[in-house]
Amino acid sequence: MNYQRIIYSLSIILMIVGLAMLLPLFWSLYYDEYDSYALALSCGITYLIGVIGYKKTKREGNFLSKEIFVIVTLGWLLASLFGSLPYVFTRIFPTYADAFFETMSGFTTTGASVLTDIETLPHGLLFWRSLTQWLGGMGIIVLFIALFPSIGTGGMQMFHAETPGGNFVKKLKPRISETAKILWSIYLLMTVTLAVLLWLLGMPLFDALCHTFGTVATAGFSTKNISIGYYNSAAIQWVITIFMFLAGINFTLYYKAFRTKSLGVYAHNEEFKLYSFFVLVAVFLVVCSNYSGSIATLDDTIREATFQVVSLLTTTGYATVNYNQWSYFAQTVLVVLMFIGGCMGSTGSSIKVGRILVLLKQAKLELVRCFHPHAVLRLKIDGKSIGQDNVINILQFFFLFLAIAALGTMFMTFWGFDFVTSFTATVSCLSNIGPGLALVGPVENFAFLPDVTKYFLSFLMLLGRLEIYTVLVLFLPSFWRKG
Amino acid sequence: MNYQRIIYSLSIILMIVGLAMLLPLFWSLYYDEYDSYALALSCGITYLIGVIGYKKTKREGNFLSKEIFVIVTLGWLLASLFGSLPYVFTRIFPTYADAFFETMSGFTTTGASVLTDIETLPHGLLFWRSLTQWLGGMGIIVLFIALFPSIGTGGMQMFHAETPGGNFVKKLKPRISETAKILWSIYLLMTVTLAVLLWLLGMPLFDALCHTFGTVATAGFSTKNISIGYYNSAAIQWVITIFMFLAGINFTLYYKAFRTKSLGVYAHNEEFKLYSFFVLVAVFLVVCSNYSGSIATLDDTIREATFQVVSLLTTTGYATVNYNQWSYFAQTVLVVLMFIGGCMGSTGSSIKVGRILVLLKQAKLELVRCFHPHAVLRLKIDGKSIGQDNVINILQFFFLFLAIAALGTMFMTFWGFDFVTSFTATVSCLSNIGPGLALVGPVENFAFLPDVTKYFLSFLMLLGRLEIYTVLVLFLPSFWRKG
Repeated sequence: MNYQRIIYSLSIILMIVGLAMLLPLFWSLYYDEYDSYALALSCGITYLIGVIGYKKTKREGNFLSKEIFVIVTLGWLLASLFGSLPYVFTRIFPTYADAFFETMSGFTTTGASVLTDIETLPHGLLFWRSLTQWLGGMGIIVLFIALFPSIGTGGMQMFHAETPGGNFVKKLKPRISETAKILWSIYLLMTVTLAVLLWLLGMPLFDALCHTFGTVATAGFSTKNISIGYYNSAAIQWVITIFMFLAGINFTLYYKAFRTKSLGVYAHNEEFKLYSFFVLVAVFLVVCSNYSGSIATLDDTIREATFQVVSLLTTTGYATVNYNQWSYFAQTVLVVLMFIGGCMGSTGSSIKVGRILVLLKQAKLELVRCFHPHAVLRLKIDGKSIGQDNVINILQFFFLFLAIAALGTMFMTFWGFDFVTSFTATVSCLSNIGPGLALVGPVENFAFLPDVTKYFLSFLMLLGRLEIYTVLVLFLPSFWRKG
Repeated sequence: MNYQRIIYSLSIILMIVGLAMLLPLFWSLYYDEYDSYALALSCGITYLIGVIGYKKTKREGNFLSKEIFVIVTLGWLLASLFGSLPYVFTRIFPTYADAFFETMSGFTTTGASVLTDIETLPHGLLFWRSLTQWLGGMGIIVLFIALFPSIGTGGMQMFHAETPGGNFVKKLKPRISETAKILWSIYLLMTVTLAVLLWLLGMPLFDALCHTFGTVATAGFSTKNISIGYYNSAAIQWVITIFMFLAGINFTLYYKAFRTKSLGVYAHNEEFKLYSFFVLVAVFLVVCSNYSGSIATLDDTIREATFQVVSLLTTTGYATVNYNQWSYFAQTVLVVLMFIGGCMGSTGSSIKVGRILVLLKQAKLELVRCFHPHAVLRLKIDGKSIGQDNVINILQFFFLFLAIAALGTMFMTFWGFDFVTSFTATVSCLSNIGPGLALVGPVENFAFLPDVTKYFLSFLMLLGRLEIYTVLVLFLPSFWRKG
C-alpha cells in the first residue's frame, strides 16, 4: 500500500470538509451568535491540515484496490472526526461521544440525534448539522471525484466503494468524473427546487435550507424538536413527502429521462416499479390500520401514513406524528420498510429495493428449479442477465445486513435496553434512518444511551452508509497481508 | 400429473398414521380411560380410508417431480387432519382450529400447545400427542420409504423434499430405502436408550416415553404443564440436554462413526464444529448474564443456561425455567439461536447450522473478492466444493425464511398482539420450536390466539418442517400448468 496516495486523497477530503464549514460560519456571522468562533476555528484547522497533507504528499501511480477501501472508510471517519470540531469547541455536548455520534449521524444521512433540545442551538451549528447530511447524501467521495477529476482510474473504484449500489449505477459518461458531476448537478438542482418551494410555502429561508438538506439526502435532521410535525401545513408535508420519494429514486434515471426527454425510462425500470409498489402497499396497510380507530379525517390519515411510510422507506427519518402510538400492526409495517430502503443509486440506504428485487426474482427461480431441476434459469433485471457472482454478492449482502442487525441488537440489549428499543435502534442506525420505536421513537432522541453504545451505533451508521463490504474488508487479516 | 400415484402414496401414509394410533390406544386401554373409544374410532377410520385408497389405486410408472411435492405436502397435511381425530372425538378442544394446531404442532415437531392444562388429559391422548412428534421427527415420508421400498426412484426425490437439509444428507447406501432404514434405526436406538435412561432416573415409564419422543424429535411436548421444570432432578435435565444436543446432529455422522469405529468424523465435520461452537458461546453469554444477578449457584446457572440454549438451538422447545424473566440480553441470545437450528439431517429445524456455515464462509469469500476482484473463489465445506447453484439456493432459503418471518410478524400484529409476542410466535412456529417470548413464553401456551392465527401458525410450522420450498412451489401458478 502506498501511504502517500492515501494521505493525499484523505487531505483533499479534509479540504472539502473544511471549506464546507464556511457556509455555517456565514450564518453564524449573519445571526451574530456565539458559535462563529468555534466554526472559524474548526474551518481553519480542518482546511489547514488538509492543505498541509495535500502539499506534502504525491499522488503517483495508480491506486491499488486495497488503498481504495482504506481511503473511503478513513475518509468518512476523518470527515466525522473533524466535522465534530464545531460541536466540541462550543461544548454543547456533555461528552465527545455525543459530538461524534451527531456528526457521523449527519454525514451518513442517518439523522439520529443526541440533542435533547434542538431549538436552543445557534444557527451556525444547526446549519452545519444539516449540511453534513447534504454532503453525505450524494457522497463525499463522489464530490471529491467530481471536483478532482485528476484522481484517474482510482475514481471509478472509489465511486463503487462509496456509492450506494455502486454496481447498479451505470457509468453515464466514459469518464467517472463526468458521471460524478452529473449526479451532483441533479442533486443540486433538486436541492434548489425544494428549498425554493419550501420558502414559497412560508418556511423561513434558514429552515427551508436545513430541511431541504435533510430531505434530498434522505437524512432526517430537523431544526425543530418535533421534526416536520412542527409545520402544520399540509402543503409543506406533501412537498417534503414527494421530495423524499424523489430522492429515493436512482439518480441516473433522471439523467436518462432528461436525455431521452421521456418518462418511459421509469415505466421500464423494474426497481422503480417495485419501489412505488412498496410505497402504495405500505400506505394502504397503514391507512387501513390507522383510519379505523382514528378521529382524523381520511385526508389527514392518508397524508400522515404517506409521510411516515415514505420517510422510513427512503431512510429519511422525518416524522409528522408520533408513530410510537400507532397500532402494533402499523408499526411493524414501518419496521419492515426499514429493511428495504431506497433504490440503488439514490441517496437512500438500507438493503435497497434493487437488492430486494433480485432476492424476490431469484426466489421465484429457485422455486421453479424445484420441479424443473435441469432447466438453466438465469436472473434478468430490466431484460439484462445478472451473473451468478453478482447474485451471490447481493444475497450475501442481505445475510450480512441481517447478521449485523442481530449482533447489534444483542449488543444493545446487553446494556439493559428492551428488545424493541435495541432492535429498532440498531436497524435504524444500520439503515441510516434515524428514529426507531419505543425509547428511540420519532419524538425521542439517543441522548440517554451510554457512550459505548453511541460509538457502536456510529460504527453501524458507517457500515450501513458504505454498504458493509467497504468497511468490513478492513477487519479481514488477509486484507493487511502483502500481495 | 398422475392422480393414481398420488392417492396411492397418500393412502400408505394414512395407513401408517392409522396403525400408529394403536400405541396410544394400548395406553388408553391399560389405564381404562374415556379416550379409548375415540382412539379406536380414529384408528379405524384412518387405517380404513388408507387401505381403500391403497387397494383402489395403482402405482404405475415413475413419479414426476411435481407429484413428489404434492405427495409430501399433502401427506403431512392429511396426517395432521386425520391425526387430529382423537382430539375431535374426545372434544377436549373448544374449536377444530385447536385440534388441528395441536396435531400439526406435533407432527412438525414444533411443540407449541393450545392446552391450558396438559395434566388433565387422559394417557391415550397424551401419548398420541407425543407420538405424533416422534413420527414427524425423522419424517413420515422417510418412514414410508423405509417401509415401502417398492416406491422406487420417487423415494429419493420424496426423501429430499421432506428431509431437513436433504441435499446435505449423502445417500448412505445405493438404495434410498436402505438409507431411510438406517436413519430410522439410529433414531430408534436413540429413542430406546433415552427412554431407559429416564426410566432408570426415576421417571415413570409413560412419562419417560413421552419425553423421549419430545427430545429425540427435538419437538418439545411435555406431559407436564411446566415442561421439564417439573422434574427437579439435575440428572434428568442433563440427560435430556445431552440427547437434545445429540438429536440436533446430522444422523449420517452416527452411521459413519459406527462404520469407521472412530469419532474422527466429528472432528472433521465443519457443521458439527460450528454447532458445538454456537452452544458454547450461547451458554457462556447466558451464564454471564444470568449469574451476576442471581442467587442460584454457578452449577444451577450453567445447567439452566445449557438446557434452554440447547433446547432452543435444536428447536426442541423444552424449558426448565421461565426465561421470560431473564435479562433482555439473555432473551435476545435465545432469539438469535431460534434462527440457527440444528444440523442438516438432524431432527432439528430452522435455517440450520449447515446453511449458516455456508453463509458465513461465503461472506468471507465476498469480502476477499472486494480486493481480489479477479480471483476465482469457490466455497468449500469439509474440503468439497459447493457449486454456485447450491450456494444461491442456500442464500435464497435464508431470504425466504426471513421474509416469511417478517410477513408472519405483520400478520400476527394485525390481530393486536405486541411486537415481541408476534415476532417470537412466528419465528418459533416457522422454526418448529414451540415457545417464544412474552405472551407465548415457555410457561404460557397458544390457546388465547384467534382461530385464524392458529391456522396461520400451523401453516408456518408445515412450511418450516418441509423447508419452505416444498410447500411454496404449490403456490406457483406455473406449477399447475402442463409440461
